[in-house]
Amino acid sequence: MSKVRVASFSVSLDGFGAGPRQSLEHPLGENGTELHHWFIETQTWRKMHGEHGGRGGVDDDFSARSMRGVGAWILGRNMFGPVRGPWLDEKWRGWWGETPPYHVPVFVLTHHTRPPLPMQGGTTFHFVTDGIHAALELARRAAGDKDVRIGGGVATLRQYLSERLIDELHLALSPVLLGRGEALFAGIDWRDLGYRCVDITAGEGATHVTLAKRA
Amino acid sequence: MSKVRVASFSVSLDGFGAGPRQSLEHPLGENGTELHHWFIETQTWRKMHGEHGGRGGVDDDFSARSMRGVGAWILGRNMFGPVRGPWLDEKWRGWWGETPPYHVPVFVLTHHTRPPLPMQGGTTFHFVTDGIHAALELARRAAGDKDVRIGGGVATLRQYLSERLIDELHLALSPVLLGRGEALFAGIDWRDLGYRCVDITAGEGATHVTLAKRA
Repeated sequence: MSKVRVASFSVSLDGFGAGPRQSLEHPLGENGTELHHWFIETQTWRKMHGEHGGRGGVDDDFSARSMRGVGAWILGRNMFGPVRGPWLDEKWRGWWGETPPYHVPVFVLTHHTRPPLPMQGGTTFHFVTDGIHAALELARRAAGDKDVRIGGGVATLRQYLSERLIDELHLALSPVLLGRGEALFAGIDWRDLGYRCVDITAGEGATHVTLAKRA
Repeated sequence: MSKVRVASFSVSLDGFGAGPRQSLEHPLGENGTELHHWFIETQTWRKMHGEHGGRGGVDDDFSARSMRGVGAWILGRNMFGPVRGPWLDEKWRGWWGETPPYHVPVFVLTHHTRPPLPMQGGTTFHFVTDGIHAALELARRAAGDKDVRIGGGVATLRQYLSERLIDELHLALSPVLLGRGEALFAGIDWRDLGYRCVDITAGEGATHVTLAKRA
């Protein structure tokens, strides 16, 4: 059955899903790339970026699984780019170049309308201005019997989580202290929302934690 | 060389070192015992409590190591007991019965004086009213060339950490979401204080994280 899921979402030991002060220079916030070393070294990541090599193993298995069976994505606007406020022009086309690694419809949450942006390789960015429920409805329809993946960032994930709209989360706990940044858990009672840990698996560069919502 | 360390300190996936509302009935806060399942099942724990059996393996190795070479402990008052305010009498003698599992001097931080309390098996509780630095000085002197272990709870650990007085921390990350309780990381920039992750090892019931202070 189609699921709404978060996958390969990196978190620091102190609970940050991104560093502070995201910018064009630091798309993942300051020191944020340290969270993703486990992923960048995998075969899956290399292949996604048209490269060869990389590491197989547990981290790679989780990476590959996170991409499999995804029919649509939802991204917060900050994950799409560093532009804030109205789209002054349409020059910004995402962080990923002309062939983004999605290959399916991607719904971007924003307060500012913009026409759909078809990219190479099957990705089309759709800009949704009427909230997280509307975006999920569109994504579900686009995904059919495949999964909807909530890509992030932290604020977007927390919004969907708080409404119990996420079925499963795979978090990759990186062996890093960020000290500051976007806190994933703070101020939300995940237990009370019905989430629990269903698996922990040690990888080469991260510890993989799977959380699921009680039926 | 003698170290100041935290060891076998259990933390939930969402970063809580104890549940909320500690009481006589819930010494570790509500649902707090879930954090310690990994430890309670080890041979080391059983032996400490005069029992046989228990599980060997990674969790047990970390448990045994956490007890080895400790010459003195420091505990926050809440870790010593549920009594708040002045000691109305001296009936409360700790959570652990007449033979506590310390077997060395234990310095309890409190705002209220009380004479030292010698117990069976080598443990003596000393009540220190002039702050964390004074307690550490006393503990260091008592420990000699052995280590001083900061036992907890969360508030005590955070106080020592904020002053960079802890050399090494072994946290046992339990596969549990507590949802609420005493947050270990919130509001302190561990990275900025100079701490970093030096080891992660998967155990049977917890993931063992070792943090150390940069020299």
